[in-house]
Amino acid sequence: MSTVTARVLDLLAAFSADRPRLTLTELATRAGLPLSTAHRLVGELTAWGALERGDDGRYHVGLRLWEVGALAPRSLGLRETAMPFLEDLYEVTRQNVQLAVLDGTEVVYVERLAGRASVHVLTRVGLRLPLHATGVGLVLLAHADPELRERVLAGPLRRYTEKTVCDPEELRHMLADVRTTGVAISDRQIELISLSVAAPVSGPDGKVVAALSVVVPAEGTNPHSYVPVVRATARAISRALAENDVTVGK
Amino acid sequence: MSTVTARVLDLLAAFSADRPRLTLTELATRAGLPLSTAHRLVGELTAWGALERGDDGRYHVGLRLWEVGALAPRSLGLRETAMPFLEDLYEVTRQNVQLAVLDGTEVVYVERLAGRASVHVLTRVGLRLPLHATGVGLVLLAHADPELRERVLAGPLRRYTEKTVCDPEELRHMLADVRTTGVAISDRQIELISLSVAAPVSGPDGKVVAALSVVVPAEGTNPHSYVPVVRATARAISRALAENDVTVGK
Repeated sequence: MSTVTARVLDLLAAFSADRPRLTLTELATRAGLPLSTAHRLVGELTAWGALERGDDGRYHVGLRLWEVGALAPRSLGLRETAMPFLEDLYEVTRQNVQLAVLDGTEVVYVERLAGRASVHVLTRVGLRLPLHATGVGLVLLAHADPELRERVLAGPLRRYTEKTVCDPEELRHMLADVRTTGVAISDRQIELISLSVAAPVSGPDGKVVAALSVVVPAEGTNPHSYVPVVRATARAISRALAENDVTVGK
Repeated sequence: MSTVTARVLDLLAAFSADRPRLTLTELATRAGLPLSTAHRLVGELTAWGALERGDDGRYHVGLRLWEVGALAPRSLGLRETAMPFLEDLYEVTRQNVQLAVLDGTEVVYVERLAGRASVHVLTRVGLRLPLHATGVGLVLLAHADPELRERVLAGPLRRYTEKTVCDPEELRHMLADVRTTGVAISDRQIELISLSVAAPVSGPDGKVVAALSVVVPAEGTNPHSYVPVVRATARAISRALAENDVTVGK
């Protein structure tokens, strides 16, 4: 028998980017709850503002829950400190600029800036992707605990394109290069139209807490031309985190 | 006797931008719960990832709750559609660019872009401010239900600076002007160093769902020079919301 807390959290977890609006019946089904239980809990969540009910009767995540979530240090402190530098990077490159953190064995994107002329990307704020295929993921994996790194390399390693590196040995060499050079290049590993150049962001204690990248069109791009500006921006954010003593990680 | 759901939500509401990290004792006190109850519920919330525990033993909002919150349509759909236009506006003005929505009788900021040269602002993503004193607030108040408008005008109306308009009759005239001209100017009403120029963003059904503003230094600025670009950007976002049929409100 699950606790009430678990049921409430299961209801919240029923929403996804693909399914941001759900009927009460869908909510009950996805949370594995009897309709009557779901009805009562959803009523309480809605009264508080964690959920909101649309004109069509479907429920979605409410603004009040969004506000509480925005207090997560890996969003609030990191994002606020990084934003001016992300803006500078966007202005210089006019490409997608992304900031991501490690959670479990995945990358979570906490910020993304993009203009109308930027190349299409799969990512959005809040999206998760595996560590082995993205520039930010390779950076975070290179600097992760060895135990986590081995667990990820042990697979499964999903293939997104013909260029996705799924061989553990080849990945191990790439990760060593990332640690040596301070930069990761994911060349058409997620979509064949784009590549990303990423660098690590450190917290006040020197540990890597995030990764920064630009995603640029693969066609006609020399990724190495982006390396200096991405590395310089990541270092500038790291320095600002240290100066402001912003604790980002746990 | 409060329900378990209410207690869980009270624990989440204990966090604020001023107090993003709390000990278990502080959490229990702020949520009005016995320590043993708080201990059990916080344990469940932490296991799920709604809360995370720092190296110093204090708890903060977890990345998983942030992810769920990011699914709120007034964040996800609105933000994703608006971002390229916000970027354009930032590039043209090099000033703070803000996007805000109405919640209850307050403004909530859902996005803010700022460069290192932008004027200091109080706002951050997730912040609430009253409707009568900010540019975005005046826009949202001007287009709100008459009943809500009267409730706000009935006060109390907080004075932030000597320039804050707190007289209901004067505000009523300003709001009529906002509806006529399609723009609101909040001149040094929040801080004496800055003013904001704001315009309404409409959803696919034509209703105002958000407001967009630039915040610029008050010194030596002619706010009217910002009116065309702010109005044009707000209209471009409105058109994009309609074209993509993005439902933002309830």
